[in-house]
Amino acid sequence: MTTPTADSALPAPLVGVVMGSASDWSVLGPACDTLDELGIPYEARVVSAHRTPDWLFEYAESAEARGLRVIIAGAGGAAHLPGMLAAKTLVPVLGVPVPATLLNGIDSLLSIVQMPAGVPVGTLAIGKPGAVNAALFAAQILGTADPALRGRLAERRAANEAKVLGQTLPPQT
Amino acid sequence: MTTPTADSALPAPLVGVVMGSASDWSVLGPACDTLDELGIPYEARVVSAHRTPDWLFEYAESAEARGLRVIIAGAGGAAHLPGMLAAKTLVPVLGVPVPATLLNGIDSLLSIVQMPAGVPVGTLAIGKPGAVNAALFAAQILGTADPALRGRLAERRAANEAKVLGQTLPPQT
Amino acid sequence: MTTPTADSALPAPLVGVVMGSASDWSVLGPACDTLDELGIPYEARVVSAHRTPDWLFEYAESAEARGLRVIIAGAGGAAHLPGMLAAKTLVPVLGVPVPATLLNGIDSLLSIVQMPAGVPVGTLAIGKPGAVNAALFAAQILGTADPALRGRLAERRAANEAKVLGQTLPPQT
Amino acid sequence: MTTPTADSALPAPLVGVVMGSASDWSVLGPACDTLDELGIPYEARVVSAHRTPDWLFEYAESAEARGLRVIIAGAGGAAHLPGMLAAKTLVPVLGVPVPATLLNGIDSLLSIVQMPAGVPVGTLAIGKPGAVNAALFAAQILGTADPALRGRLAERRAANEAKVLGQTLPPQT
Amino acid sequence: MTTPTADSALPAPLVGVVMGSASDWSVLGPACDTLDELGIPYEARVVSAHRTPDWLFEYAESAEARGLRVIIAGAGGAAHLPGMLAAKTLVPVLGVPVPATLLNGIDSLLSIVQMPAGVPVGTLAIGKPGAVNAALFAAQILGTADPALRGRLAERRAANEAKVLGQTLPPQT
Amino acid sequence: MTTPTADSALPAPLVGVVMGSASDWSVLGPACDTLDELGIPYEARVVSAHRTPDWLFEYAESAEARGLRVIIAGAGGAAHLPGMLAAKTLVPVLGVPVPATLLNGIDSLLSIVQMPAGVPVGTLAIGKPGAVNAALFAAQILGTADPALRGRLAERRAANEAKVLGQTLPPQT
Amino acid sequence: MTTPTADSALPAPLVGVVMGSASDWSVLGPACDTLDELGIPYEARVVSAHRTPDWLFEYAESAEARGLRVIIAGAGGAAHLPGMLAAKTLVPVLGVPVPATLLNGIDSLLSIVQMPAGVPVGTLAIGKPGAVNAALFAAQILGTADPALRGRLAERRAANEAKVLGQTLPPQT
Amino acid sequence: MTTPTADSALPAPLVGVVMGSASDWSVLGPACDTLDELGIPYEARVVSAHRTPDWLFEYAESAEARGLRVIIAGAGGAAHLPGMLAAKTLVPVLGVPVPATLLNGIDSLLSIVQMPAGVPVGTLAIGKPGAVNAALFAAQILGTADPALRGRLAERRAANEAKVLGQTLPPQT
Repeated sequence: MTTPTADSALPAPLVGVVMGSASDWSVLGPACDTLDELGIPYEARVVSAHRTPDWLFEYAESAEARGLRVIIAGAGGAAHLPGMLAAKTLVPVLGVPVPATLLNGIDSLLSIVQMPAGVPVGTLAIGKPGAVNAALFAAQILGTADPALRGRLAERRAANEAKVLGQTLPPQT
Repeated sequence: MTTPTADSALPAPLVGVVMGSASDWSVLGPACDTLDELGIPYEARVVSAHRTPDWLFEYAESAEARGLRVIIAGAGGAAHLPGMLAAKTLVPVLGVPVPATLLNGIDSLLSIVQMPAGVPVGTLAIGKPGAVNAALFAAQILGTADPALRGRLAERRAANEAKVLGQTLPPQT
Repeated sequence: MTTPTADSALPAPLVGVVMGSASDWSVLGPACDTLDELGIPYEARVVSAHRTPDWLFEYAESAEARGLRVIIAGAGGAAHLPGMLAAKTLVPVLGVPVPATLLNGIDSLLSIVQMPAGVPVGTLAIGKPGAVNAALFAAQILGTADPALRGRLAERRAANEAKVLGQTLPPQT
Repeated sequence: MTTPTADSALPAPLVGVVMGSASDWSVLGPACDTLDELGIPYEARVVSAHRTPDWLFEYAESAEARGLRVIIAGAGGAAHLPGMLAAKTLVPVLGVPVPATLLNGIDSLLSIVQMPAGVPVGTLAIGKPGAVNAALFAAQILGTADPALRGRLAERRAANEAKVLGQTLPPQT
Repeated sequence: MTTPTADSALPAPLVGVVMGSASDWSVLGPACDTLDELGIPYEARVVSAHRTPDWLFEYAESAEARGLRVIIAGAGGAAHLPGMLAAKTLVPVLGVPVPATLLNGIDSLLSIVQMPAGVPVGTLAIGKPGAVNAALFAAQILGTADPALRGRLAERRAANEAKVLGQTLPPQT
Repeated sequence: MTTPTADSALPAPLVGVVMGSASDWSVLGPACDTLDELGIPYEARVVSAHRTPDWLFEYAESAEARGLRVIIAGAGGAAHLPGMLAAKTLVPVLGVPVPATLLNGIDSLLSIVQMPAGVPVGTLAIGKPGAVNAALFAAQILGTADPALRGRLAERRAANEAKVLGQTLPPQT
Repeated sequence: MTTPTADSALPAPLVGVVMGSASDWSVLGPACDTLDELGIPYEARVVSAHRTPDWLFEYAESAEARGLRVIIAGAGGAAHLPGMLAAKTLVPVLGVPVPATLLNGIDSLLSIVQMPAGVPVGTLAIGKPGAVNAALFAAQILGTADPALRGRLAERRAANEAKVLGQTLPPQT
Repeated sequence: MTTPTADSALPAPLVGVVMGSASDWSVLGPACDTLDELGIPYEARVVSAHRTPDWLFEYAESAEARGLRVIIAGAGGAAHLPGMLAAKTLVPVLGVPVPATLLNGIDSLLSIVQMPAGVPVGTLAIGKPGAVNAALFAAQILGTADPALRGRLAERRAANEAKVLGQTLPPQT
C-alpha cells in the first residue's frame, strides 16, 4: 500500500518501525540505524493514527501474521499511534514521543505512557535517545530467544563502556 | 451491541455521548443532564478506544448515517477516544478530559487537545465543567439551524445571569 | 470600524476569524487559508480583549445578526478573547491558543480551555495546527447542514490519507 | 443590582472586592476580614466575567466615579475577571487566583498574571494567602496617601514579627 | 538473601518483580496478581537502588543466568532502580513509576523514562495501571515465543472487550 | 553608593526600579521607558538580593523616607529581590519575573508570586510585557491621587485602542 | 530573642535548624530527630524571611561565630529563607522545600534550588524525606572531620540496608 | 582507568568532579574553573551511571580512601549519577542538573533532588550557575575546617558585592 524505501536490506522484517509522518524520520531514523547495526531485519512505514486510521488497523491486525515480533511507533502531539496499535495487536509496542509541537514532547510523552490498565505501551525517552533505545529494547526482547543477538548487544555495551572510559576532559574537539 | 440505559427519552438521538468506561459516568452524566434540560435527544454509550477499538470504529463510521450531528467523547489518561472518533467521522467531536489518573487530567487534556492539523477535536475543560460545556456547545452547534433551541439556550443564560446577580455575600448556607 | 483586508473574496461571511493583534496573523492566517480552500466565506478582524474591550462586546453582540455561524478566536498569554466572546454570544466560539509568551502557549491553552460550566469554548491545539483545525472544525459545524461542504471535507480527508499513504522513507527532500 | 450583605460597616467603600461566584467566598472572605481589621471601607460583590459580562463592564466603568480606589478580583479556572476589569478601568486591579479546578489554581494564576503589555493586573498568591495579601497591598496603595493607615499597617507588621519571635518549638498545640 | 513470600507458586520464575520498598507493594502487587492470572512464574523482591545498591547489582548480574526473561521494577521519587538494573543486565527492564512523593509520580516518571541513548527502560503509566500493564507487557514479550501464553492474552483481551460492551449507563452500583 | 546613569531626567524620583543585575536591563529598560513616557520621575538601580543583601535592606529601609511611592523589582531564577524588599518596607512592591534561567521564568514567577500571607508583592507577567505593565501599574497607583497622570494614562489607553482598531490584516510589513 | 524548646540536650549546637513558621515543625521535626539519633548538637528556631527579616540577618551574621557549622533551613511557597541566609553567611546552608501551598512544594523547590551563580544552597527533596536527608547531609559534612560520626553514619546505613534486605512481600501489617 | 586531562595542577585532589559524558564539560567546566580560582585541588572524570556502572561503584567506593572530601556530580535526563554515588559513599555528593534533553533540565532536577530519606544529594541549580555553585558549596564545606579557604571565599563575596555596587544602568557594552 505504501512505498517505503528505508527497509533493512535483510528479508523477513522482525521489527516494524512506524511513524505518523515522513517528517518524523529525523527522530525515528536513528532507530533504524541501530537495528541495521545489530543486524535485525525491519521495515519502516508511515502510519498516521489520525490521517490513515484504517491503514493503522490493517497494519496492526496483520503484524503478527506477517512475522513482526516488535513494533516501534513514534508520534508527536496527541500521540495516539502507539496506543492504538497496542489496542489492536498483542505484538509488543514500543512508543517514542516525538517533539513535534511547542510543548517539546511532554504532550506526546503523556499521551503515550499514560495508557489505562489492559493495553500497555513500553515507552521510551522523548526524541532521538528514545528512538535509539526503542531499537535496543526491541533487540533485548528478540534477544531473549536469540543468544547471538544477545552477544552483539553485549559487545555494543562493552564498546560503549570502553568509549566512556577513554574520554578525556576537557573533550578534544 | 451494548445495553445502554441512559439514553434520553426522546427519539432519534442527535448527540452521541460516549465515554471510555462506565466509571466515567460521574463526569459525563452532567452532560446528559444538560442535554435533557435543553430537550436535545441523545444516546449514551461506553466506547473504549483501547479495549473496544473495533466498536469505536463502527460507532464513528455509522454516526453520520444514524443521524448524529455531534459526538461528545470523554476519556482519561492517554485519552485517545475523542481523537480516534474524529479521525473516522466528519461529525464534530467534542472532547472532555476526564481526571482518571494521578495527574488530575492534565494528561488527558494534552492527549485530547494537541491534535495535529487535519483532524480537529473541540476540547472543553477538565472534568464536570467540561462535560456540561460540551453539552452546551453541542446545543450551540445544533442551534445554528434551530431557532427554538437557540431560544432555550438564551433563556438558560439569562437565568444563570439572574442567579449570579441575586447571589449574596457571605453565601447563605 | 476596523479596516481589514484579509476577508475572503466571497460575500456574506459565515465565519469570523478574530485575533488579539495583527502580529497573531502568522498563526491565524492558516485558518483563513483553510477556509478559502474549502470555499467558506469569512471575515478576519483584530479584536483585542484587553485593548478594545468595547469593540469585543460590539463584535460579539452583532455576530449572530450579521450572519456569523462560527467564530474562531486566537489569543496568547492571558488569552481572554475567546472566553469573553463566548460570554456575549451564542454563536459557537472556537479558541486557538497562540504561543505569544515565554511559556510557549501553555498559559493561553489553560486560559482558553478551563472555562467554567455555562460558557463553553471549543479549544484547539496550540499554534498553527490549532488554527488549521479551527477552520476545519468550523467547516464540520457548517457541514452538519451543508452536504456539499461535507463532500469537500471528505475529499480533503481522502487527499490527506492518500498523501500519507504515498510518503516514502527516508523522505525525499 | 446585586444584594450583597458582606460590605464593611463603614460608608463610602474605597475597595471593591469582587469574585466570580459566591462559592469563592471561602477564599475571598479573608480579604474582607483583613480590610475590616485595618478599618478600610469596602464593598463585596459577585461579578462573573462569563455569566454577567455586562454587569462586569458596568462595575468597572462606574468604579472610579463611585470612589473605588482599588479593586480586588478573585477568580478560578480560566480566570478572566481581573483582566477584563483592568481593561475597563484605570483603578488598580489586584488579582487573586482561586483554586477552583482540578489544576489547583495554576490555571487561574497563569490566566491572571500573563497579561499583555498595556493592561496590568497586580497578581497575588493562589488562594487565601493571596486574598489576605491583596487586602494588605490595597492598604499599602491607599497608605501612600494616608499616614494613619500606614501606621496601622506598621503596627500589624510589628505584631506579626513579635508573634513569630515568640513562637516555640515544638509548637504548643 | 531476602525473605520474600509473594513469589508465584510456580517454579522457575521468568519474571522478576522488584520494588524499592515493601511499602510499594500496594502499587506493584497488582502486577503479581496479573502474572498469577496468566500463569507466569515470577519472584517478588525488595531491591532498593539507594539503600541496597550492592544487592541491586547482584540481582541484575545474576538475573539472566537465573532464568529471568523480564524484570519489572517499580520505584518512586528519584526512581533509579529501573535504570540501574537496565545498566547492569540485558534482560529487558520494565519501569513502573510509583507515586511516592508529593509530586504524584511525575518525578518518578521522568526519572525512569528519560534514559540516555544506550540503556533503555520500557516505561509504563504511573501507579497501579502501570503495574498491571507491566505484567501484561512482560507476558507479551514472553508470548513472542509462547503461543499458549499468547492465547491466554488474547482470551483476556476478548473478555475485557466483552465486559466493556456489556456495561450499562448509568452504571449499576 | 551605586553609580546609576538611567534615572529619569526629572527630580525627586517617585518610583524605584531595581533589578538583580545590569544584565536584567534588557527586560527592565522598557519599564523605565514607559515611566519616561508618562512623565513619572524614577531612579534605576542594581540591587542584588543575594550578592548585596545589605544594600537591599538599606534600599528598602530608606525608600519611604526618600520619597519613593512604588518600587518595581525585577529578578530571575530564585527571585528573592521583590519579596525581601516587600518584607522591609510598606512601599508597594511590584515584581517582574525575569526569564534568566533555562526554565523560561516559571521559576521566578513562582518565587515572586507565592508570598505567604502578610507580605504582598503585586506580580506582573514574565519578561518585558510584565516590565511595561509594572510601570503602568505604578502609574495607576500614583494616579489614584494625581488626576493629571490619570489623564495621561487614559490618553495612552485611547491611543492603544485606536492603534488596534486601525490594524489591517494581513499586517503591512 | 526567641524561646525555643526543641534544642538538642547537647551543648554547643553545630547545626542550626530554622523554619519559617512553627507550623513547619511537622516537616522539619524529623530533621531534629535524625540529628538527635546521630548525637549531633543542634538548635531549632523559627526564622521568617518575610516576617522577621532583621532576625534572619542577625541569625545569619552570628552563625559562624556562635559555632554553627551547617544551617538547615526549611520554607514553603516563595521560600526565601534558605537563599537569604546563604547570602549572609559562609556557613553551608541546606534547603528543605516545605509543601505549604496548593502547589505541593514545587514552588518552594524552585525558589530554593534555582539560586544564581555565587550563592549556593544545597537543596534536598520536598517535605519530610528532604528534612531527614538535610540532617544526614549535615552529618556527612561534619563527618568529613569527625571519624566517629562517620562511623555512626556507616552503622545507620548498614542498619537500613539490613532492614531492606529483611523486608518480606507482601508486607506484614 | 580513564585518561583525564582537566585535573587541577595541585596534588591530592579534595574534590572529585564527575559527569556522565565528556559533552557535559561545557556545563561542568565552570565548576573546575571556580575550584581553580579558590585553590582547591580536584580531579575531573567522566563517570556514566548507565554506561559505566561498575566504574561508578569503584569510584564511589574508593573516594573516601583516596582523600576526596566532596564529590560534584553533573548529569542530564534521568540523572542517576549523583544519587548512585551517594548510595555508595558517605562523602557528601553535590548534584548539578545538566540540561541535556528537550525538557531543559527539569527532568534531571527532579531525578537528582527527589531522593528518598536515607541517601541525600545536595542539589544545585540547573546548568552552569549550579556548577559554579557546586564548587562554591564544596569550598564552604571544606572551609568549615580551613580558615584560609574561608577567607578566600569571603574575599570572593566581597569582590562580587563590589562589582554589583559598581554596575551602571544602562549597562556599558
